[in-house]
Amino acid sequence: MNRRVVLSSRPAGIPQRENFTIDAQPRPLLAEGEILIRNHYLSVEPAMRGWIVDTGNYAAPVAIGSVMRSLAAGIVEESRHPAWQTGDRVLGWFGWQELSAVTPDAIVRRVVETDLPLSLSLGVLGINGVTATLAFGGIGAPKPGDTVVVSTAAGAVGSVVGQLARASGCNTVGIAGGPTKLALCRDLFGYDIALDRHDPDLPAAIAAACPKGVDIYFDNTAGPISDAVMPHLATGARVIVCGTASVADWAAWPSGPRVERHLLVKRARMQGFVIFDHMDAWDDAVSALAEDVRAGRINYREEILEGLDAAPDAIAGLYRGENYGKRLIRVG
Amino acid sequence: MNRRVVLSSRPAGIPQRENFTIDAQPRPLLAEGEILIRNHYLSVEPAMRGWIVDTGNYAAPVAIGSVMRSLAAGIVEESRHPAWQTGDRVLGWFGWQELSAVTPDAIVRRVVETDLPLSLSLGVLGINGVTATLAFGGIGAPKPGDTVVVSTAAGAVGSVVGQLARASGCNTVGIAGGPTKLALCRDLFGYDIALDRHDPDLPAAIAAACPKGVDIYFDNTAGPISDAVMPHLATGARVIVCGTASVADWAAWPSGPRVERHLLVKRARMQGFVIFDHMDAWDDAVSALAEDVRAGRINYREEILEGLDAAPDAIAGLYRGENYGKRLIRVG
Repeated sequence: MNRRVVLSSRPAGIPQRENFTIDAQPRPLLAEGEILIRNHYLSVEPAMRGWIVDTGNYAAPVAIGSVMRSLAAGIVEESRHPAWQTGDRVLGWFGWQELSAVTPDAIVRRVVETDLPLSLSLGVLGINGVTATLAFGGIGAPKPGDTVVVSTAAGAVGSVVGQLARASGCNTVGIAGGPTKLALCRDLFGYDIALDRHDPDLPAAIAAACPKGVDIYFDNTAGPISDAVMPHLATGARVIVCGTASVADWAAWPSGPRVERHLLVKRARMQGFVIFDHMDAWDDAVSALAEDVRAGRINYREEILEGLDAAPDAIAGLYRGENYGKRLIRVG
Repeated sequence: MNRRVVLSSRPAGIPQRENFTIDAQPRPLLAEGEILIRNHYLSVEPAMRGWIVDTGNYAAPVAIGSVMRSLAAGIVEESRHPAWQTGDRVLGWFGWQELSAVTPDAIVRRVVETDLPLSLSLGVLGINGVTATLAFGGIGAPKPGDTVVVSTAAGAVGSVVGQLARASGCNTVGIAGGPTKLALCRDLFGYDIALDRHDPDLPAAIAAACPKGVDIYFDNTAGPISDAVMPHLATGARVIVCGTASVADWAAWPSGPRVERHLLVKRARMQGFVIFDHMDAWDDAVSALAEDVRAGRINYREEILEGLDAAPDAIAGLYRGENYGKRLIRVG
């Protein structure tokens, strides 16, 4: 049998446990050209919220009644395609289920880093690490001495950005929520300064941490943290819009302090990044990140939930801020 | 004597008539290395609001008691500097006054287009045309077939942007206020479509005018027009933040619908432009614009106020939207 997590109703904002049901289907039969993957790890991303809602997004939403869209890492169990053999380690769009019968276009890459845990393909060596690498390096265009502020600084993307920024010779300021994440920022991810987003005078804390202004702001929040950072941009600043975790519901479009004057006065650039525009660069980015991980230059943290039953509440949990590392679900 | 317009008090928002006084001083005496300019035209810019307020800007504000900062076009009347001779036509930072004794660093350029009216050096061949050229060509990066939306489309900057966009093979949509400006957009500046900013369903009008989305939004407003345009950005859109005319007062920082989700989902870029970063490119931009004007490829409109007494109310008038062309003051 193949247990699956199916989207059973469409949430207004953050997907909740009750929007999913778990069922069991017969083991898939392979057609010619297909590959059967046994999934070992399923990914949980903040972006999944956007893949589910039917407004304001970059891809068609997951259909009601279908398996929840997800990256997963697994091992080929059976193949009717000449390019793939039993035992191959693969990353791809296999969904929240135990077994996936797919054609090769669902496979993002062969996981060749056999010396490293397979789970890393979903985090530091996967969508999060690759997003951090390409968005920070591309839009951020870091220079030594730049001051870099990262929101959700202990998160799966932010933690890599902070470490890449430090490796680029930047001054790094991480913003995260609560003492555990602040300790991770300082001790594991090497931020020069870690600020608590709950600080009642966050703007003053940012000003003190960034006396020459903020050259690069890597944002995953689009909320009060951004509102506190934007007035402190340096001339020529780059703002990377990578996520909007602070906004529960785009159906009721939120307002905030206008950014135009900051962008004008500081000749700053604010730009959105979606990893799916950059799939061609994925492999090279992973190779570089893998070297950094092996050499101990990039640290990471995973939070592995056990079993498919943990999936329905897992996205909501991200938005509750309860995870302390890249959230995964182990199913194999 | 030299009549001057002096900033006598600092406005909270838009500078009003009562923030200025007019005085008369003795004709300036030249020191060695100085040049005496007789001003013929003084400029009136929306940006002057920003040069006066003491918050949220890119340059030190005009000091109380000093002559209002302004570009002006005039003729050298006397020179104690070897590079400048009596009769030279010049554009520079000569202020709102009849006579200016300056050192060469106040001169932006020698006006070599002697076949064209001197007044153009303050508009289509001056800060407005150069801003349009460099901001639209640089940040906008237009491609044939792009859809370009311009706010304050009949204004001194916007009207040049619209014509440059059309010359680049773009579909052009101008947004302006009221029937006179809409007629100018269509008949003089050649926009494919002109929309009234007072349209009660401006978002629907924009959607209808831009069926493939907005590739380039050239904005001078930072207000309701922008809020109507941003949801219609095309993937990969560029938003040029060139002015914030809709905002009366940055001391009480205004809010608006958040832009982050639009920028993220459309992988769009939003960037501020200040002409003073690009003074090296000024001369080449004017040369190209002068050719376009001579060839009839770029039209322009001027609104010339007579005499220095018109100056104190002239900025406020821009924000009342009462001008139908580049506003100038003739003093010589």
